[in-house]
Amino acid sequence: MNRHQLISQIKQKKSFLCIGLDTDIQRLPRHLLTLDDPIFEFNKQIIDATKDLCVAYKPNIAFYESMGAEGWESLQKTLAYIPDNIFTIADAKRGDIGNTSSMYGRAFFQNLNFNSVTVAPYMGKDSVIPFLDFKNKWVVILVLTSNPGSLDFQSVEGQSGIPLFKQVLETSKKWGTHENIMYVVGATRADKLLEIREIIPNHFLLIPGIGAQGGSLQDVAQYGMNSDCGLLVNSSRGVIYAGSGLDFAEKSKEAAQKIQKEMAVLLSEAGI
Amino acid sequence: MNRHQLISQIKQKKSFLCIGLDTDIQRLPRHLLTLDDPIFEFNKQIIDATKDLCVAYKPNIAFYESMGAEGWESLQKTLAYIPDNIFTIADAKRGDIGNTSSMYGRAFFQNLNFNSVTVAPYMGKDSVIPFLDFKNKWVVILVLTSNPGSLDFQSVEGQSGIPLFKQVLETSKKWGTHENIMYVVGATRADKLLEIREIIPNHFLLIPGIGAQGGSLQDVAQYGMNSDCGLLVNSSRGVIYAGSGLDFAEKSKEAAQKIQKEMAVLLSEAGI
Repeated sequence: MNRHQLISQIKQKKSFLCIGLDTDIQRLPRHLLTLDDPIFEFNKQIIDATKDLCVAYKPNIAFYESMGAEGWESLQKTLAYIPDNIFTIADAKRGDIGNTSSMYGRAFFQNLNFNSVTVAPYMGKDSVIPFLDFKNKWVVILVLTSNPGSLDFQSVEGQSGIPLFKQVLETSKKWGTHENIMYVVGATRADKLLEIREIIPNHFLLIPGIGAQGGSLQDVAQYGMNSDCGLLVNSSRGVIYAGSGLDFAEKSKEAAQKIQKEMAVLLSEAGI
Repeated sequence: MNRHQLISQIKQKKSFLCIGLDTDIQRLPRHLLTLDDPIFEFNKQIIDATKDLCVAYKPNIAFYESMGAEGWESLQKTLAYIPDNIFTIADAKRGDIGNTSSMYGRAFFQNLNFNSVTVAPYMGKDSVIPFLDFKNKWVVILVLTSNPGSLDFQSVEGQSGIPLFKQVLETSKKWGTHENIMYVVGATRADKLLEIREIIPNHFLLIPGIGAQGGSLQDVAQYGMNSDCGLLVNSSRGVIYAGSGLDFAEKSKEAAQKIQKEMAVLLSEAGI
């Protein structure tokens, strides 16, 4: 999916919601546990219930890997089930030397057919470029994350007084374009969004951290939205675990709808 | 495996060689390709041929993930096949918020029973601590890697003139001890090893980058060895692809033996 198609989905659905498929076998509704593949069955019902309310799904790869080869199969089935008009993000936070990054690219872009993958920047340019070599695919680079430990290194100031996360932006934006790079900025760092938008006015931002982690959708839109929207705001647990009974999918739909309605207002206020 | 056991293996085998199982289906000897699980069969023969010459195996997870669920099964079988007295490293370079890192911990430490996993530090303390919560397991934190792009951010100097990789060392060494943390330092950065040893005299270092990437074993030992050895030096392609015919395992044994003999001399010179 290219940038134009993504923006048109946002306008059509009046939503910039990304739903995080952090599907944990220990949190599934009990009635699914007797089925052949409870992880996929859960995702399938969540997708059926929410696909008209969101523009992206973001499976968190750790949750599938924790289930071994079976988890990988559940992931494969989930990807095949997501409609083509919805953007897909492998939340994998990979990053390694060149030939290894190419292998991860093969895993996520070719075998699983994800549109994008999240990448950690610590190893620098040649750890990211191999992902950009895949045509019509995106990398989503970690910049400023929503967890408490993000301050340990991301905010460390260089000799010119510029914090590391800004150096990551300045350096990495030259590796590609706003047609194939997005950035992760945690919703709990909304105060930094104005400064970030000065460096990358046009790039899409993937914003985790509303809901369970405490970030505010209003703040994110106020400081981070650009004229194309330019935001994918993620909610994982708040949507997929909104219910835990037989009606879990209906509850997740209600939770997604609540966010989508708020987003529709924010988009309309911005004239998008 | 604990630190004491690892050191005793190094002394017994007169080796601090780690063999990287970067097993690529496209580089396997042809005669293996008709078998049920060529990846595992290759690893099995490499392990049989080299297990008395090395003290660690380091499967590069990307290579297995690029094969999907089947790759994960090959990895599982490989781990089960590695003898208990050999240290195992999941070269995964993971790192995410707390609950996700715990999931990766479950994947590598519990399901696959690895002794250790490589972790990227960009997201800070709470992305690493969940791995340390697993008893008798190790995290191997990226500090200074061997690729050209490592200079992009790892060498960026902070306001006090201290480069990022040293700040990672200073900060992260407080998260655990030299009984559960190791660090990755590329062999191509041997000139920095003296400075690194000033900060962490006792920690084990995992050193990739000899062989294909051009680092020197002599330099690494001269500047990085401590009184317990404190080094695991990795070779991947140079050992496992030393041959490509029917005698590939024999060739890999010869390549490993060549390195082990050099290591025996270096250990003896250091009185270990």
